[in-house]
Amino acid sequence: MTGDTLREECGVSGIWGHPHAVTLTHYALYALQHRGQESAGIAAACSGDDGLKLHRGLGLVAEVFGEETLESLRGDCAVGHVRYATTGNTSLRNAQPLVVRLKSTSLGLAHNGNLTNAARLRRCLEGRGSIFQSTSDTEVIAHLTARARSDEMGASLLEALQEVRGGYAMVALTPGQLFAARDPAGIRPLCLGKLGDGWMVASETCALDTAGATFVRDVAPGELLRIDDEGLTSLRITGKAPSALCIFEYIYFARPDSNLEGHNVHQVRKELGRLLAMDHPVDADVVSGVPASSLSAATGYAEQAGIPYEMGLVRNRYIGRTFIQPGDELRKLGVRLKLNPLRKVVEGRRVVLVDDSIVRGTTSKILVELLRAVGAEEIHLRISSPPYRYPCYYGIDTSSKGELIAAGRTVEEIRAIVGADSLAYLDEDRVAEAAGGTRSDFCTACFDGDYPVPPEETDEDCFGEVD
Amino acid sequence: MTGDTLREECGVSGIWGHPHAVTLTHYALYALQHRGQESAGIAAACSGDDGLKLHRGLGLVAEVFGEETLESLRGDCAVGHVRYATTGNTSLRNAQPLVVRLKSTSLGLAHNGNLTNAARLRRCLEGRGSIFQSTSDTEVIAHLTARARSDEMGASLLEALQEVRGGYAMVALTPGQLFAARDPAGIRPLCLGKLGDGWMVASETCALDTAGATFVRDVAPGELLRIDDEGLTSLRITGKAPSALCIFEYIYFARPDSNLEGHNVHQVRKELGRLLAMDHPVDADVVSGVPASSLSAATGYAEQAGIPYEMGLVRNRYIGRTFIQPGDELRKLGVRLKLNPLRKVVEGRRVVLVDDSIVRGTTSKILVELLRAVGAEEIHLRISSPPYRYPCYYGIDTSSKGELIAAGRTVEEIRAIVGADSLAYLDEDRVAEAAGGTRSDFCTACFDGDYPVPPEETDEDCFGEVD
Amino acid sequence: MTGDTLREECGVSGIWGHPHAVTLTHYALYALQHRGQESAGIAAACSGDDGLKLHRGLGLVAEVFGEETLESLRGDCAVGHVRYATTGNTSLRNAQPLVVRLKSTSLGLAHNGNLTNAARLRRCLEGRGSIFQSTSDTEVIAHLTARARSDEMGASLLEALQEVRGGYAMVALTPGQLFAARDPAGIRPLCLGKLGDGWMVASETCALDTAGATFVRDVAPGELLRIDDEGLTSLRITGKAPSALCIFEYIYFARPDSNLEGHNVHQVRKELGRLLAMDHPVDADVVSGVPASSLSAATGYAEQAGIPYEMGLVRNRYIGRTFIQPGDELRKLGVRLKLNPLRKVVEGRRVVLVDDSIVRGTTSKILVELLRAVGAEEIHLRISSPPYRYPCYYGIDTSSKGELIAAGRTVEEIRAIVGADSLAYLDEDRVAEAAGGTRSDFCTACFDGDYPVPPEETDEDCFGEVD
Amino acid sequence: MTGDTLREECGVSGIWGHPHAVTLTHYALYALQHRGQESAGIAAACSGDDGLKLHRGLGLVAEVFGEETLESLRGDCAVGHVRYATTGNTSLRNAQPLVVRLKSTSLGLAHNGNLTNAARLRRCLEGRGSIFQSTSDTEVIAHLTARARSDEMGASLLEALQEVRGGYAMVALTPGQLFAARDPAGIRPLCLGKLGDGWMVASETCALDTAGATFVRDVAPGELLRIDDEGLTSLRITGKAPSALCIFEYIYFARPDSNLEGHNVHQVRKELGRLLAMDHPVDADVVSGVPASSLSAATGYAEQAGIPYEMGLVRNRYIGRTFIQPGDELRKLGVRLKLNPLRKVVEGRRVVLVDDSIVRGTTSKILVELLRAVGAEEIHLRISSPPYRYPCYYGIDTSSKGELIAAGRTVEEIRAIVGADSLAYLDEDRVAEAAGGTRSDFCTACFDGDYPVPPEETDEDCFGEVD
Repeated sequence: MTGDTLREECGVSGIWGHPHAVTLTHYALYALQHRGQESAGIAAACSGDDGLKLHRGLGLVAEVFGEETLESLRGDCAVGHVRYATTGNTSLRNAQPLVVRLKSTSLGLAHNGNLTNAARLRRCLEGRGSIFQSTSDTEVIAHLTARARSDEMGASLLEALQEVRGGYAMVALTPGQLFAARDPAGIRPLCLGKLGDGWMVASETCALDTAGATFVRDVAPGELLRIDDEGLTSLRITGKAPSALCIFEYIYFARPDSNLEGHNVHQVRKELGRLLAMDHPVDADVVSGVPASSLSAATGYAEQAGIPYEMGLVRNRYIGRTFIQPGDELRKLGVRLKLNPLRKVVEGRRVVLVDDSIVRGTTSKILVELLRAVGAEEIHLRISSPPYRYPCYYGIDTSSKGELIAAGRTVEEIRAIVGADSLAYLDEDRVAEAAGGTRSDFCTACFDGDYPVPPEETDEDCFGEVD
Repeated sequence: MTGDTLREECGVSGIWGHPHAVTLTHYALYALQHRGQESAGIAAACSGDDGLKLHRGLGLVAEVFGEETLESLRGDCAVGHVRYATTGNTSLRNAQPLVVRLKSTSLGLAHNGNLTNAARLRRCLEGRGSIFQSTSDTEVIAHLTARARSDEMGASLLEALQEVRGGYAMVALTPGQLFAARDPAGIRPLCLGKLGDGWMVASETCALDTAGATFVRDVAPGELLRIDDEGLTSLRITGKAPSALCIFEYIYFARPDSNLEGHNVHQVRKELGRLLAMDHPVDADVVSGVPASSLSAATGYAEQAGIPYEMGLVRNRYIGRTFIQPGDELRKLGVRLKLNPLRKVVEGRRVVLVDDSIVRGTTSKILVELLRAVGAEEIHLRISSPPYRYPCYYGIDTSSKGELIAAGRTVEEIRAIVGADSLAYLDEDRVAEAAGGTRSDFCTACFDGDYPVPPEETDEDCFGEVD
Repeated sequence: MTGDTLREECGVSGIWGHPHAVTLTHYALYALQHRGQESAGIAAACSGDDGLKLHRGLGLVAEVFGEETLESLRGDCAVGHVRYATTGNTSLRNAQPLVVRLKSTSLGLAHNGNLTNAARLRRCLEGRGSIFQSTSDTEVIAHLTARARSDEMGASLLEALQEVRGGYAMVALTPGQLFAARDPAGIRPLCLGKLGDGWMVASETCALDTAGATFVRDVAPGELLRIDDEGLTSLRITGKAPSALCIFEYIYFARPDSNLEGHNVHQVRKELGRLLAMDHPVDADVVSGVPASSLSAATGYAEQAGIPYEMGLVRNRYIGRTFIQPGDELRKLGVRLKLNPLRKVVEGRRVVLVDDSIVRGTTSKILVELLRAVGAEEIHLRISSPPYRYPCYYGIDTSSKGELIAAGRTVEEIRAIVGADSLAYLDEDRVAEAAGGTRSDFCTACFDGDYPVPPEETDEDCFGEVD
Repeated sequence: MTGDTLREECGVSGIWGHPHAVTLTHYALYALQHRGQESAGIAAACSGDDGLKLHRGLGLVAEVFGEETLESLRGDCAVGHVRYATTGNTSLRNAQPLVVRLKSTSLGLAHNGNLTNAARLRRCLEGRGSIFQSTSDTEVIAHLTARARSDEMGASLLEALQEVRGGYAMVALTPGQLFAARDPAGIRPLCLGKLGDGWMVASETCALDTAGATFVRDVAPGELLRIDDEGLTSLRITGKAPSALCIFEYIYFARPDSNLEGHNVHQVRKELGRLLAMDHPVDADVVSGVPASSLSAATGYAEQAGIPYEMGLVRNRYIGRTFIQPGDELRKLGVRLKLNPLRKVVEGRRVVLVDDSIVRGTTSKILVELLRAVGAEEIHLRISSPPYRYPCYYGIDTSSKGELIAAGRTVEEIRAIVGADSLAYLDEDRVAEAAGGTRSDFCTACFDGDYPVPPEETDEDCFGEVD
């Protein structure tokens, strides 16, 4: 991806019934780190404990957890979270899991995604005397659960989830029960695995692999799983809704070694590259991808086109969250610091540069300039997804519509801005095809504005009847 | 590389005469971060200042330098350093640059490499009343310079460097002069570039790229460069010695976008893969490389062999220095956390796994097991360098000889230990051929024990005559 | 005091309508630091702001607030707090002020004291769906306020305070209103001052002095003050109850330069010493006090008895909260580190040692030993208060009854334990006399077990009727 | 002291041959904390170790040492240091002890005082090739020792100390030997004690008390003590010089429970107060002292004059090094925060305010204003020492001469500036009398400019002959 503003909100993980629950949750968070790098946290308990032990902090998993902290978090069940801050500003207060005391027990909650009716629910709850400590959506679910009529935690969570709208994957833990829920449209991914005698849930299968768990199945859209000594129980939040997995998980977010709905992400991406070469061929000498997320698509393109695949850009993997952005004078060097072109590879050559998407277009423009500066003769930009035109309301941090380069522009206008010799995108149907389905199986709202869940709640009534 | 103990000692950088000297040195250290991740530092000055401003700290460049720190380091000339700790333990005291007061001025010193006679020199200096504050080789050079007969800094440094033996690249700064020196055999790399109206030196050309400098030439073996208002002066430490650049810079250490002696590292590695496919072909379904350092060689192998190149392993780029190594029970998971195999790619396939070297063999063994566990039918390990058998005395942190899996073992014995179906190495001559020379042009001591500089000084006389 | 376990819970301060509100609150906290040293915090706002700015941290005022933090807390009104942790463990989560969002505004709350029915109220509130984030009593008041029927903040706070029982002084801030409340029995002190065109409230008058405010009057028992643009309004929490100011504020807690109900604390203590000399005279050569809290009483004793006052013990003022208590072998040195006897002063002399109280007796015993070891001929211990026998339920952290040396022991038994040649206490009536009243004007429960508010709530009904 | 700029440079301590050497050195530093609050450090070793373990840091003893740090410092001998920064700026680099490697062993050095020829010695040493790491005087001694001709440490230290001039107390430690030295004029204090089977040295006897050591004698002026398995050996740095103990140690610096040359500091101060009352009587109602250093003198004055001693000012003991000085507008409050007058004590009264010295006069002026503001009728300032007119060159941080209020002013002029109704100082002879000697027994340079050691070295020759 050559734009720099698309960011997944979060990743979640939960383990029940395993002696190394905390260590393996720690590993799972490392495996999910690409989904969120602003904070990390783990809540843990032993079955039968009175409370949950919690540690969370701002920064990478490696920064948040030290040996001492991990040892303080003993337990045979745990939930973990990594986070970007799309809703609620970046502060420790908003880090997850959120641990609260309710229904005479402790509940640890963590979720990935975005609730479209959170603001309205918060107003209603505050009007009834609830006091919020954070600005995160997660706390809305906690308060709804606290006020639910049932005394049983599963029933209470179900009541709460029936009030919320949006796209989410949620895990919740009490000392004795693990819960996992996925939004009715299945926009955000969540999978279930078997881990020894216990169970594991996670945003992606790569986390199951890392913890040594065996994949069982994806959590179904609209399903609330309860795992305890009685075993695994499946509850329904709503009746069956049309499934709409976020297509961008395939294109960019998910790790290449994860499988979504049975399809390997790397292989889908390679197929995207192959289809891109079929639909938008070009005479060229080398194919390169923008590292790291576009390398699979680039090798697919190269194979299909019969053009050698080369390392045209080297990515500096030490540029992290804390990198100090340079002022205007040095901006081009700032990009080159991250992605350095190999003069010996591109000099005097016609280059196909494969990228997975263009968001704002600023980085694409500089990359084209850098490649020309080291002698590329022609630069043909090929994007393995359709033009990104509409904001996401289900947990992806895009710029507002005005900042999306494709919003209101033709492909030729975009090409002129970024300065490539040619530019082509893959269309929605082809993307769905590569992911093993048809367009109606996915949320493609960012390409076509067709939102599976209304982006804003207009209903002004409060939830429930009498408190 | 599937062993986990080969580590470059350091990277150095120096800029003279540029208004953004500090910011660009900061960028250069990011570009050289792969050469050292335990500490980082910058010393800076304006021409005509009385002293040097210094900041150094333990950790990555991103951890050591914040906005405030960088602003406190004003100047138009600067030297920088990133470090592993082969000699001198990891402590702030040993972080570089070292800044000392001598000859009525301030001198900032940073070096990459290892002095083979440092212990003897230190004993002599202490016997004459010098007090050492650190355990680093750099301080030996500082004390020799302080005691040099000349009052001119260039002449004093030359006197000092004529006493030391080993492999090194050194930069030194006073308010007004920048120095750069390379050991007489040219074991460690160092290059010179033009940066606006000023000059830049760095361990690798990728640092020049990152700072926007234009490559001029490599610093010659045995050369001491002095850069000041008079321009650039070349001094000779010794008469001409046979050149012996460390061959492992090509194989593993240097960044793929760097050029050494005119050869691009990525292209040399791709050629290594191609020669490996010629010399050691095998019937297989897919070729994969061990990320990240072996991907160039793997694509070369795939291209030459006509076998599809695939992503068989995904590397987690968030596992850093501070990762807590798991106990025995979870050791295999610890490796899988770093390198996760893609079941859908390797299941039922005959896999060629290309790696650049094997050091201790422990990781290779686990990778083979992991690939088998996800269904690989055959695993053919191909190494793009000869067996690594001898310790390095010029700045590379290897295990002692006893821990090197290839020391005293045949290739077949190694294959049996790591459990691959077949194993083959590329030989010394082929490696030299890929790097555009013959075996005598390089230091290949780690393969054949042929050390260009005696590893230990036996001469018991002190340097100089009368102090 | 020679016991080491009596600790005031907290100190509070509030300023309304002054351009230096934050700086002066910071000063006020320094002045109240003796009342709590485990955490400190300030919440501030400008009239008409939307929210409150908050900073709080573990440690001394000097550790919690730096220049940067103070600058971030702009406003013309502020509340501040210093804290010991009698209820709720020591963690940042329990530090005060507590800032919550309720009734469409932000409320900052801080209090000194202890609610005797907090546990019951918390259970009721949780049963109705309130979620608690801390274990502090303050949050109980916040939730009661959030659920109050009124929309007006003053009325809501009044509703809340009518539910709670115990001894407390509370300050509360919204952007625009400052509130101050004192428990119906007036157990904990709270005073009101004029500060320029604005107002100030604080636990002690020394804080008014430090901020440059002029004392106006004590806040009345059972009074809730509201200060805003309309001026100062006095509301009643309950009808008039018998007043019962904690007598220990005079004896030990309050600063000597504070006045309580019109009486200066130093002068009351000096009078306690004088009465002690009248009631319990002894032939001796020197009078010394245990520093720092008993020096006033000691000079009073010396003056009345006509015996020279001397510095018999020197207190090390650098021994703070973080001092590492020595093991058994060095315990006596640990005491001597804090209080060193002056051999030249006591050697060969008959010493009257005046202390304000004995709690556990361990320190008294060691002091007597230390004085004997440097040559004191006789040691006559005189205590300027009655035997401390009963635990406090209104905000003082005493040991449980079993650890109080006077519980169940005669004066002679205590003397034998501490090893003094004689021991005498001042009786309750004399203490009340020194403080300008009679026994019924004060809470003397720690001496006689006569609690003005029942220590435990037994009523099992929840507050209010319908939520 | 009502001026706020007089600060002792440092305190030192050393223990040899005791199983709790580190813990007791830690205690000793607490006891010496009043002599330096900017950094603290301990170097420790077991006899026969190869090196010294060192920990030092910026801040108070309580901030620098935690449980973990202390445990890491094992040993049966140790030296410790607390420091103000008169020479060498405040940075960790200048914190003491300084530990260096020389003469095939490790040497830990710490000193209190100031070398008057340090700058010249440093220039000479640098000219001969010594490299300095700090700007402290201590490192000068280390380099001189390193270059001494002898191989024996005691002889080398003696050689080094024979080169330096000034006022100092020094301790030095190798694994096996403890050294202690006092300058030839005995300006700075240093005493020797017996600690179990081992020995202890310290700047003041209160440190011996705190560690449980028994006082043996003061270290003699010009004496270098060597303590090792052979026992205690006394070496002479120079022939006998006239003794000149700093008189200000009695007046202000030393702790009241310390004895200097057999005289108790508290008792000397009380005697100063008594003599002051004889020489400068006044009709008044109460006598108060400026806390904490002037309380002894104030009680002496009160006793002699037959006027009641009262607590007229309360000192806030929580105002520390890090207190943020207020701007002009709030400056008076800044003083009141530290020293609050008791209205009820001084209102309508004629007050004698006793202070030990006036340095710049700014605080005195504000105190007089504050006392008047709370109603004092008359204020008679009595100073228990002569006017402070000349800078100190032996380790006391005074303002430059221009900032001393008494420099070039008559007593009446000073009185007019500070605004007291009367002002009187005690003269030099009376101070010496109180301290049990005559004027020639002490260094009184700050009063009369009669410096026992020339303040600046003019000799331009380097030390020694041939290096």
